[in-house]
Amino acid sequence: MSTSSRVLEPERIVRLEDGRVVFLDQRRLPLEEIEVECRSAAEVAEAIRAMVVRGAPAIGVAAAYGYALAAARGEDLGEAERMLRRSRPTAVNLGWALDQMRDDPTPEHARKIHADEVTRCRLMAAHAAELLAPGTRALTHCNAGGLATGGYGSAVGALLAAWERGLLEHVWIDETRPLLQGARLTAWELEAASIPHAVIADSAAGSLMAAGEVDCVITGADRIAANGDTANKIGTYSLAVLANHHTIPLYVVAPTTTLDLSTKDGTAIPIEERDPAEITTRFAARNPAFDVTPGRLISAIVTEGGVHRAPYSESLVGAAATT
Amino acid sequence: MSTSSRVLEPERIVRLEDGRVVFLDQRRLPLEEIEVECRSAAEVAEAIRAMVVRGAPAIGVAAAYGYALAAARGEDLGEAERMLRRSRPTAVNLGWALDQMRDDPTPEHARKIHADEVTRCRLMAAHAAELLAPGTRALTHCNAGGLATGGYGSAVGALLAAWERGLLEHVWIDETRPLLQGARLTAWELEAASIPHAVIADSAAGSLMAAGEVDCVITGADRIAANGDTANKIGTYSLAVLANHHTIPLYVVAPTTTLDLSTKDGTAIPIEERDPAEITTRFAARNPAFDVTPGRLISAIVTEGGVHRAPYSESLVGAAATT
Repeated sequence: MSTSSRVLEPERIVRLEDGRVVFLDQRRLPLEEIEVECRSAAEVAEAIRAMVVRGAPAIGVAAAYGYALAAARGEDLGEAERMLRRSRPTAVNLGWALDQMRDDPTPEHARKIHADEVTRCRLMAAHAAELLAPGTRALTHCNAGGLATGGYGSAVGALLAAWERGLLEHVWIDETRPLLQGARLTAWELEAASIPHAVIADSAAGSLMAAGEVDCVITGADRIAANGDTANKIGTYSLAVLANHHTIPLYVVAPTTTLDLSTKDGTAIPIEERDPAEITTRFAARNPAFDVTPGRLISAIVTEGGVHRAPYSESLVGAAATT
Repeated sequence: MSTSSRVLEPERIVRLEDGRVVFLDQRRLPLEEIEVECRSAAEVAEAIRAMVVRGAPAIGVAAAYGYALAAARGEDLGEAERMLRRSRPTAVNLGWALDQMRDDPTPEHARKIHADEVTRCRLMAAHAAELLAPGTRALTHCNAGGLATGGYGSAVGALLAAWERGLLEHVWIDETRPLLQGARLTAWELEAASIPHAVIADSAAGSLMAAGEVDCVITGADRIAANGDTANKIGTYSLAVLANHHTIPLYVVAPTTTLDLSTKDGTAIPIEERDPAEITTRFAARNPAFDVTPGRLISAIVTEGGVHRAPYSESLVGAAATT
């Protein structure tokens, strides 16, 4: 594929080497491309909490490497697991990856979990691209790119695949307040892939839809409940209501490692409330980091297994992650 | 009224004195309270364009003072009017105020236009407060406060009146990207009035509505067409769709100087596109400053004349501004 050389290499996002886990610091992008080195499970947990690395699949991968590092260093693995598991609450991938690592805490196993996530992305992207018509002007929120998955990306992976197939005309990127993952990270990834894009204020999405300039909304997910209710970056729910009002499809692209079939619906998904200082340092503020979009507002959920449609309580059954 | 001493004095927002128009610089609030002095119509036009002063009624008042200044200085009044009129395109108040000033370009007339806008705010606020039930948790967007009207405020005036009457429990303030008028200006005004409030990311409004934490949405307006279609800060349309989806009323509070009965509907309202650099300095961006909310999504339009309900093409007839 002609554009593959411009896609972020997985080991550049996160890798385990010489007794340390090395992250590309996503807080500093795109202004600086610097690395952060973690030398214990505690440091990896702190990197996840501080959002040096973010995105549900990527923090699962990070936790796997952190656990392998703890095992190699002879740390207390129960304590390492507890620290990593509680670093952020909403994404289910964190717990999934740690469950996988418990029986085989080797670097090789962590690297396999990482490689498998990238493979899932390629599969999902191919499935999702088939949902798009030629000339699609897509809108995406936050960053569901290679940075968020450990490589290639979920929603952004779908955009890359659609672009390679000649189906994509333009991407609107919600800047995604308060941490601007759209303006900083997704724009950086799409620029690297030479895909036409424009960053917009989150609140401009509705009027672009009303003007007929959006053909579909594509996002990633942090946790998908058994009925299709999907937790994702705050603002996804608003986009879903707006897309529904304008009869525009909303596609969620996520690996099966993000499915949580043990959670019945969105009301049981814990929503992280982050520091109000991310919004304002002077006035009172409230800063929920995620919201839950009801399955009924989602046109399709795309995993590496294929395209799932409502009723999700049936179509998601059996779509559990494998390693 | 016990809280009136904490309401921003009109002459602090804008005044004409000693051959200059003096503005409180709204770009620097709340970090610094500094004044900008303009000594010609051209400088007043530039202050409006640069958003030293913003808000539809306030820029009408600013234009009136700028025109009076030009007359006192012996400037070419045709040229002064053209410069002031084209300083910003969306608000109709600018043209209205200049039309008023043409026959009497005195400082006294400009001060009367200013005082009349504040009087309209008090009247509107009383009408709007009657729409609110005790315990209301309101959500507002951008700044429709005293800073935006030359004193007291339209939507924020309604919140002040509701607070004085014991009807208001809490105000959610959209931070309002890209220029953060909500986080900077509305929060500053509500803090001064001791009204409980919290700033939120614009994209969090939908999930707060879904959680049952919003009882009504109250905004100002930049231009209201004859059928009730309302141009206001970008994001108002998204809020209207979200409020409608959640069966939450959306009230527009605006003086009759913001009505434009000569414009049939929202499609004829010019929408300002501002510098993409307000959003991002590195990537492509698009930055519409306003959007248009269809009258059918607006529960009521409140002017100083009272509460107007749909069909607006009937209820707004005869509600033209007087001086």
